Amino acid sequence: MLVTFEGGEGCGKSTQIKLFEKYLKDRGENYLLSREPGGTPLCEKIRALLLEGKDEMCAKTEFLLFSSARAEHMEKVVLPNLKKGKIVVLDRFYHSSFAYQGYAGGQNLADLKAITDYATGKCRPDLVFLLDISYEDGFARKAKDENLKNLDRIESKGKEYHAKVREGYLALAKKEKERFVVIDATLPAEEISKIIINEFEKKRGG
Amino acid sequence: MLVTFEGGEGCGKSTQIKLFEKYLKDRGENYLLSREPGGTPLCEKIRALLLEGKDEMCAKTEFLLFSSARAEHMEKVVLPNLKKGKIVVLDRFYHSSFAYQGYAGGQNLADLKAITDYATGKCRPDLVFLLDISYEDGFARKAKDENLKNLDRIESKGKEYHAKVREGYLALAKKEKERFVVIDATLPAEEISKIIINEFEKKRGG
Repeated sequence: MLVTFEGGEGCGKSTQIKLFEKYLKDRGENYLLSREPGGTPLCEKIRALLLEGKDEMCAKTEFLLFSSARAEHMEKVVLPNLKKGKIVVLDRFYHSSFAYQGYAGGQNLADLKAITDYATGKCRPDLVFLLDISYEDGFARKAKDENLKNLDRIESKGKEYHAKVREGYLALAKKEKERFVVIDATLPAEEISKIIINEFEKKRGG
Repeated sequence: MLVTFEGGEGCGKSTQIKLFEKYLKDRGENYLLSREPGGTPLCEKIRALLLEGKDEMCAKTEFLLFSSARAEHMEKVVLPNLKKGKIVVLDRFYHSSFAYQGYAGGQNLADLKAITDYATGKCRPDLVFLLDISYEDGFARKAKDENLKNLDRIESKGKEYHAKVREGYLALAKKEKERFVVIDATLPAEEISKIIINEFEKKRGG
């Protein structure tokens, strides 16, 4: 079973992944937690180019770099662990690319989908938890937690970009109702966690 | 006008590019010489991951990394210089990916072509000089020039791989007769250079 967490900046993904991981651990589940881009030494180097790097890059380059890390992570981490019967939990997957590089970055969605199918071998998540938040609420939350001067290359893209990311995510959720669960990210963390666990158990039972 | 040089290891590409550059310079031509992967600070970092890196990587990752560098190089270097009317000369372009990752690496050619069209915006070279050499002759020549212990990640892939690269190049040349010029790379360098200049002038005049 492949479960992914998606959402804009400041949506509380990390907190929810931690709570979900605690739930899996407490029940003695066989699971693996990983993140995109990342998960292998090479993927972490690609991540550094994408996020920490100061190099300007064009939209196609950005998407192809994400896709290269995705292909590597799929073959080396995600697929082998799914084959072993593990629950694989991902902090971001290809829906991030569709929302960020597609809806917000203006890249053609059909191109992104075709290249993603190549990178992932058409592997799809069973469940996508979308933590939905507005730009204002998300960045207000980030401002409390962290130094906003340390935003990475993608976080720094500004309000208009991030508003489109949110719209993109909601459009994807509408198109893929069978796997998306959209949750209001301004609810209390414990309440969100209950919704997530409940939906996970429903999907697993069904 | 976009002119590319292709060929397997030890084919003498660098020598021929230098001789061709001298010809362009002597005639006062407005040209730009660049290489793939490379040509910008970000692309050189991707090149380092691909060639100098010790990280094992799967075939799709390799191709997508090449494609990301290609997209960046196209938008930042190749297209702006073609628009200025320059002759752009490339040490490798997408035919390298088709021969190496496609024919030799076993990746599906239709996938590679679709992703390359995305990365390049369907820009095609006007002339491709293929310096054709066997694995044996190519690596014998490399052994004279350099320490064979210092082969990069792709050069080290072995005889069978490089024999398929050669076959792939020849198959591509057959399919794209309008742009490929296949030259026996075991001819003397000066003779090869004359063929190249002659074909370049014919294409330009025609």
